[in-house]
Amino acid sequence: MNYFSSNFKLGILGGGQLGKMLLYNTRKFDVYTCVLEASNDAPCKIACDKFHLGNLMDYDEVYNFGKQVDVLTIEIENVNIDALEALEKEGIKVYPGSKTLRSIQNKAKQKLFYVDHNLPTAPFSRFAYTSEIEDALNHGGLNMPFVWKAAQFGYDGQGVKIVKSTEDLKGLPNVECIAENLVPFKNELAVIVARNASGEIATYPVVEMEFHPEANQVEYVICPARISNEVAKKAQDIALKTSEAFNHVGLLAVEMFQTQEDEILINEVAPRPHNSGHQTIEASYTSQFEQHLRAILDLPLGRTDNKVGGVMVNLVGAEGYTGNVVYKNIESIMKMDGVTPHIYGKKQTRPFRKMGHVTIVNKDLNEARRVAEQVKKSIKVISE
Amino acid sequence: MNYFSSNFKLGILGGGQLGKMLLYNTRKFDVYTCVLEASNDAPCKIACDKFHLGNLMDYDEVYNFGKQVDVLTIEIENVNIDALEALEKEGIKVYPGSKTLRSIQNKAKQKLFYVDHNLPTAPFSRFAYTSEIEDALNHGGLNMPFVWKAAQFGYDGQGVKIVKSTEDLKGLPNVECIAENLVPFKNELAVIVARNASGEIATYPVVEMEFHPEANQVEYVICPARISNEVAKKAQDIALKTSEAFNHVGLLAVEMFQTQEDEILINEVAPRPHNSGHQTIEASYTSQFEQHLRAILDLPLGRTDNKVGGVMVNLVGAEGYTGNVVYKNIESIMKMDGVTPHIYGKKQTRPFRKMGHVTIVNKDLNEARRVAEQVKKSIKVISE
Repeated sequence: MNYFSSNFKLGILGGGQLGKMLLYNTRKFDVYTCVLEASNDAPCKIACDKFHLGNLMDYDEVYNFGKQVDVLTIEIENVNIDALEALEKEGIKVYPGSKTLRSIQNKAKQKLFYVDHNLPTAPFSRFAYTSEIEDALNHGGLNMPFVWKAAQFGYDGQGVKIVKSTEDLKGLPNVECIAENLVPFKNELAVIVARNASGEIATYPVVEMEFHPEANQVEYVICPARISNEVAKKAQDIALKTSEAFNHVGLLAVEMFQTQEDEILINEVAPRPHNSGHQTIEASYTSQFEQHLRAILDLPLGRTDNKVGGVMVNLVGAEGYTGNVVYKNIESIMKMDGVTPHIYGKKQTRPFRKMGHVTIVNKDLNEARRVAEQVKKSIKVISE
Repeated sequence: MNYFSSNFKLGILGGGQLGKMLLYNTRKFDVYTCVLEASNDAPCKIACDKFHLGNLMDYDEVYNFGKQVDVLTIEIENVNIDALEALEKEGIKVYPGSKTLRSIQNKAKQKLFYVDHNLPTAPFSRFAYTSEIEDALNHGGLNMPFVWKAAQFGYDGQGVKIVKSTEDLKGLPNVECIAENLVPFKNELAVIVARNASGEIATYPVVEMEFHPEANQVEYVICPARISNEVAKKAQDIALKTSEAFNHVGLLAVEMFQTQEDEILINEVAPRPHNSGHQTIEASYTSQFEQHLRAILDLPLGRTDNKVGGVMVNLVGAEGYTGNVVYKNIESIMKMDGVTPHIYGKKQTRPFRKMGHVTIVNKDLNEARRVAEQVKKSIKVISE
């Protein structure tokens, strides 16, 4: 398929900030793009050729949208997979495919997938409802602390909670879930693997993540991770093995724990551009967004190493502020060395909402990390 | 002015590829954008918030468009300057300003500006009509060879011709023009100077340009230029002096000749993102497009040095092909090391039309230059 022909159409399910950054990169290749998204205020609306308003979980809306395109991709996993499967049968190229997505969308199934494929992950129990957890605790089948995770639709730090006492169970939604052993890790790491339709594979350097203790959102992503070559090699190998098992096309972001004993355990994966890869825009030879496009359009993959060291800071809504967003001190961070803000264009802020990110690059990674702290201390996402 | 407020509007005159690349960068800052452009097929159409169809040389259309925005910029110099002047009087921030544009739009005036400001440039004569040139030659007031340049509306290699004999004068439009001494130069160089509304100034490294001998279009832009520190310093100083004289806000691309005696002569300037700065997208800490935005929005300027060496290759329509464009061998260049194509989205090709560019980056500039030659040899912009 020659995607440079004017008849070629790329469809994207989801119209959020990831889709928006993906869309800019389609412009370099002059690809005609269509977006399906439920919100008329979505960041993607003005970045695509054709915007379709519709529910991503609705079979008919996804199917009818997909029938109009040649290649279909996602920027969010919560889409109607039955529709994708029907589209695949009719010859639409769906990347990631319905089979890959089915193994990922439900976190319980995702954990079972690791077990089935002999991929290292933290031990866990699966529950049809959160209410069953108390029984398991009473009967000794489960011990605290553990990590409660909703099997479906977790996003932006919702759907995950560390449970240290039965108190913590209160207020959790009564849904399908898992209880995962709490891993006392040294580091959270991630590797993005790219795989094109022809099977060419490339891995990005291992990144190191620091999480906000309360919001369960990444505060800093540091690339490359400041770990030993041995641990980095192990993380890369496991990411590659995971990529092979899922047999995906496009990106696969593999989030992992480095345990106290330097074991690597898979936390979770995302088959798309990912928060742990935003620094690639400025730091890498090929941004994750361009790479995802290269992969799903079956083009040769680009270089994945860094030009310079990169640190990414998430911009999340400050606690205590809800309403029309204001980026306080954004001008002062733009004075700092190697700083580029990326504002996603959401008009309303609320506590911990992802509003943007800032990348800090420098030939000296420690200097980038130092500037990142200054950025973090200076900028505040508040309301008017 | 807080441009992050949702009421802020940025207007861009012109909807071509420069505008398109500028628009992607507005997304990082979530700036609301309006574009005025005469063609409904313009690359900018889908990248802006609001597209206005209109003639850039028409007073009323430019004025009415400008009245709706807070800051107005250009991506092409050929716009109605009287309208800009009226808008300035009414408080619209126009960058570059009408005064700067008036000194640049007409090449005869531009040359006089250099003379008036004691800026080095090649000697020249000014003519109201091309037909007067033959008289001047006959009366000994002008000698061949010289460079004929139309005073207005030259673009993409049109409007410039080297005249070696009276034969070469035939077929030239009978318009206001200059005849400039042909400078036997060693190198063509360029420096982009950024200046924000508060007066903060930053200069990009000197780039070296290689022109296509027939089409008079840049074939390679090499950054940084492979010249002595002394010559680089001289070029930077003259670019800064030129920037000061024009008192512009935004970018000023200063194209220069390095003579056999290592003198620097100003060739011409452009008060906007420029072909000689495309490699900044991949090679520099701050792309020229982001820098132009920082400057006109009066934000702090970003770093202008290179992360890695960069070479840019223009993609122009091959001779002998007119019609629906095909990018032959684009997949093979994407396999090469550090290569990113930028396709502008024009559907029709014709000989020497600017259809896109390719950037090649590498820590070793000579290696980037070597790959650039491979790119040049491989890709062909042809028609179906």
